[in-house]
Amino acid sequence: MAQVQRMSRLMVKTLRDDPADAETLNHKLLVRAGYVRRTAAGIWTWLPLGKKVYENVARVVREEMDAIGGQEVLLPALLPKEPYEASGRYEEYGDLLFRLKDRKGSDYLLGPTHEEIFTQVVKDQCSSYKDLPVILYQIQTKYRDEARPRAGVLRGREFQMKDSYSFDASDEGLAEAYALHRAAYQRIFERLGLDYRIVSAVSGAMGGSASEEFLAPAPAGEDTFVDCPECDYAANTEAVTFALKPVSTDGHAAVEELDTPDTPTIETLAEHLGVPASATLKNLLVKVDGEIVAVGVPGDREVDLGKLGEHLAPAEVELVTAEDFVGRDDLVRGYVGPQGLEKVRYIADPRVAPGTSWITGANKADKHARNVVCGRDFEVDDYVDVVVVEAGDPCPACGAGLKLDRAIEIGHIFQLGRKYADTFQLDVLGQNGKPVRVTMGSYGIGVSRAVAALVEQTADEQGLCWSKEIAPADVHIVAAGKAVQTELALDVAEQLGAAGVRVLVDDRAGVSPGVKFTDAELIGVPTILVAGRRSADGVVELKDRRSGEREELSVADAIARLTA
Amino acid sequence: MAQVQRMSRLMVKTLRDDPADAETLNHKLLVRAGYVRRTAAGIWTWLPLGKKVYENVARVVREEMDAIGGQEVLLPALLPKEPYEASGRYEEYGDLLFRLKDRKGSDYLLGPTHEEIFTQVVKDQCSSYKDLPVILYQIQTKYRDEARPRAGVLRGREFQMKDSYSFDASDEGLAEAYALHRAAYQRIFERLGLDYRIVSAVSGAMGGSASEEFLAPAPAGEDTFVDCPECDYAANTEAVTFALKPVSTDGHAAVEELDTPDTPTIETLAEHLGVPASATLKNLLVKVDGEIVAVGVPGDREVDLGKLGEHLAPAEVELVTAEDFVGRDDLVRGYVGPQGLEKVRYIADPRVAPGTSWITGANKADKHARNVVCGRDFEVDDYVDVVVVEAGDPCPACGAGLKLDRAIEIGHIFQLGRKYADTFQLDVLGQNGKPVRVTMGSYGIGVSRAVAALVEQTADEQGLCWSKEIAPADVHIVAAGKAVQTELALDVAEQLGAAGVRVLVDDRAGVSPGVKFTDAELIGVPTILVAGRRSADGVVELKDRRSGEREELSVADAIARLTA
Repeated sequence: MAQVQRMSRLMVKTLRDDPADAETLNHKLLVRAGYVRRTAAGIWTWLPLGKKVYENVARVVREEMDAIGGQEVLLPALLPKEPYEASGRYEEYGDLLFRLKDRKGSDYLLGPTHEEIFTQVVKDQCSSYKDLPVILYQIQTKYRDEARPRAGVLRGREFQMKDSYSFDASDEGLAEAYALHRAAYQRIFERLGLDYRIVSAVSGAMGGSASEEFLAPAPAGEDTFVDCPECDYAANTEAVTFALKPVSTDGHAAVEELDTPDTPTIETLAEHLGVPASATLKNLLVKVDGEIVAVGVPGDREVDLGKLGEHLAPAEVELVTAEDFVGRDDLVRGYVGPQGLEKVRYIADPRVAPGTSWITGANKADKHARNVVCGRDFEVDDYVDVVVVEAGDPCPACGAGLKLDRAIEIGHIFQLGRKYADTFQLDVLGQNGKPVRVTMGSYGIGVSRAVAALVEQTADEQGLCWSKEIAPADVHIVAAGKAVQTELALDVAEQLGAAGVRVLVDDRAGVSPGVKFTDAELIGVPTILVAGRRSADGVVELKDRRSGEREELSVADAIARLTA
Repeated sequence: MAQVQRMSRLMVKTLRDDPADAETLNHKLLVRAGYVRRTAAGIWTWLPLGKKVYENVARVVREEMDAIGGQEVLLPALLPKEPYEASGRYEEYGDLLFRLKDRKGSDYLLGPTHEEIFTQVVKDQCSSYKDLPVILYQIQTKYRDEARPRAGVLRGREFQMKDSYSFDASDEGLAEAYALHRAAYQRIFERLGLDYRIVSAVSGAMGGSASEEFLAPAPAGEDTFVDCPECDYAANTEAVTFALKPVSTDGHAAVEELDTPDTPTIETLAEHLGVPASATLKNLLVKVDGEIVAVGVPGDREVDLGKLGEHLAPAEVELVTAEDFVGRDDLVRGYVGPQGLEKVRYIADPRVAPGTSWITGANKADKHARNVVCGRDFEVDDYVDVVVVEAGDPCPACGAGLKLDRAIEIGHIFQLGRKYADTFQLDVLGQNGKPVRVTMGSYGIGVSRAVAALVEQTADEQGLCWSKEIAPADVHIVAAGKAVQTELALDVAEQLGAAGVRVLVDDRAGVSPGVKFTDAELIGVPTILVAGRRSADGVVELKDRRSGEREELSVADAIARLTA
């Protein structure tokens, strides 16, 4: 790349207005600043400035992957169907997969990720435990036929990703490769200047360390996560746990039956009794593999059927219908309470702890009961975190009220284990001469998405605002317009360029200083140098793009500062 | 990239035998040396060593494109159908195009080249003559569904190409952009170490400089071209011209009719008369837009119908059939001669020059004539180079006998003109305030193909043999096996690496010295350093991979040599 890029020769057309259909900052600003251009829905062209930023992100990723011993390869994007059929993903991906046929009618797909092909490569190249461990990576174009491609380059149908895969002969080796990636990702996102959180991607049941996501908080994000304002706890909403805290069952009044006509819902009941919904116990009936099961949560909370299903998997969870009550006199619809529900398995959220007292159904039409105490009047068969997490729920680490935030998933690390090795019978000869099944990890960073996330987190009202490592140039020199100013600007640009500073110099003729300043703010290079009013005296102005701080300096001082 | 790569940690598996289906050097050796692996027919994976070589070629291309002011961009590979329908190429490409539908049923294609999309980009980004000239390029994955993908990475269905496009407001601008590309391509191929020729891609009729190909002579090549052994003339076989050299028509004997029963072909005639076929004149009858035309060439030469068709385009050229002779008593099939063919237009090759004398048909059954002199007994309406070029034909530049050689097309530069600008109405505001239609050039280098061409031209019986700029490392250090040797090898590797030399060090345990030496030759790094027998004395051997020359040196001298 040329160290000095003259704007008069750069293909960049800035726009004053946001594109009509743009909803997110990265879409608006990357288009307005001439970094990207949409070619089709979710399919983007990287223009010269955008390509530089993209390459800077890719370089950081590459350097850190090399530093952990990653070996760079390049796999095709056009892939035969067979390996994906073998793994089951050809079907599982459904409409997300771009499928096509070649001239002979053979089936192909455009790769969404490459676990299958990497497994085949390693099966071909590695035969002994001595050939392992191996970490392979590529920075490559991926395809997913999203139903609603949106948000600029944040969620494209064609996009660039760094995907890497680790291959080990032992679980300890996988844990080490995973830890190497986790640390490399931390360095990458720190170098990129992204604010991020690492969260467990799945609930504790699957093993907390087996899969983590790197989330960049941003309003445009599609993921919701919980974030503790007091400590460094952060988690996927599905992964938040609530500790069971039993208290004594003593000291509660006896169960008392209440006349509650026409109160089949929590809302009608709470209103009728003049109590908060949180004082009541909601008992949701579901069918688990056909058997009716009751799920108890505080009346003001919702059941997360996804979490419940994940906990009970592989059993099927369905909601009950009117027919399920036929012949079940023990189940009084709308008036169910856990006390006396002898034939039904009772699952409860940890908030329904032993010693807590509730208003709940009395198992008779139009009747409820109060002072129904867990551990005294009913037992819980199984505690499961099933409520939908809400802002203000206690942090599992420190107890402070959690925040719910939106975020962009910028990275994902995953201990895959032997799923793909089993599919393709990937074994190596072990130290004892016997075959050992290989264990794998898979790790991804959205490179084009990271650019979008950076914009979402760092842009301001004037435009883009890059960190030094990612910016398309180090210094943006604005020649205000007169000959002496342009001359000075080009002279400074040349001196800086010769010193290895990457310079963008706005030497355009016939463009007003105002437009040049506005463009400089929009384009977002970290330092703006203005050859303006005092050019004839050899004085220029330095402006910090982010803070807006300005300073007048002699040319020599400015160059010394910028080459320091 | 790490400066020191230990073979013990590199994913590379060398093979002693050629892959069963490999026909070309690059396929055999790149697979055997562990550089590439086939994923599907014509679809390849670049393994770690191959990726390094690929990136080195890409870097050279990028540097030279930047040097002529090229601006790098990245366009999508998945493209909407509409722009390619507008240009007509959606149909023209036929089966070569990979076509697919998205989840909504919209039509897409995988880009074979990007003229359409670049035209749209420039239409969007450039509005004034001041925004031009622009040269845009990308190094990107391309797709062509070849009927017979073959020859390793030489002719893939998914492959990497540098394609660039110039946009100018004037023909002079286009000529300049073309000249810049031509010079950049020369520098690129020289830096890569490729032996190449620049040839006119089309015959003179279309303007010799409008399109040129860069050909790398190699037996595995799919193109045939003519090459002068005496001067630097080289051309596509279609583009060779033969100068018309009229001589005096005086001094020839009179036309004499010969009795030649049953000699309707040149072969039967030449045998019957006991003369060489070159003494006879062959008159091929064709239909040009339905009208019969005769084409005269020496009897020993073939007519290139492609050349003839190109010359007469857009008229349609067909061969005559028996029915075309009905009612044409002037045309005696098998015995046609140009003398007295008054109703038929006569086209001839320049070899049938005024003053040459021929044996040809007498326009009577079973009769031929001798001493039929061009310019005396018949006239030529139109001279066209129509014969198929043969080895030994005179060089148009120096007259020496031409050679016919096979070559790989590694680059192509093309003055497109306004075809795509017309399709997409790409105008800019001219200096006079009126719209100017933009003129374009398109320029391609096959990056993955260049790697294949390098192998075809430079490999030897031991294996690959890279030039310094392209090699995956500068030095390949072989540790013969003993502890002292491995220690020395790693020490030298570290010193060289610290000095910026790219080192591959074979520190594998349990691999015999013989296998390591064979692998080093196969992998093809330019310099091989052996820590062998005299390691304890601090003496190593340096071997030049290409020449095979060996030399024993002290470690200090070896390091000084390699870091010089």
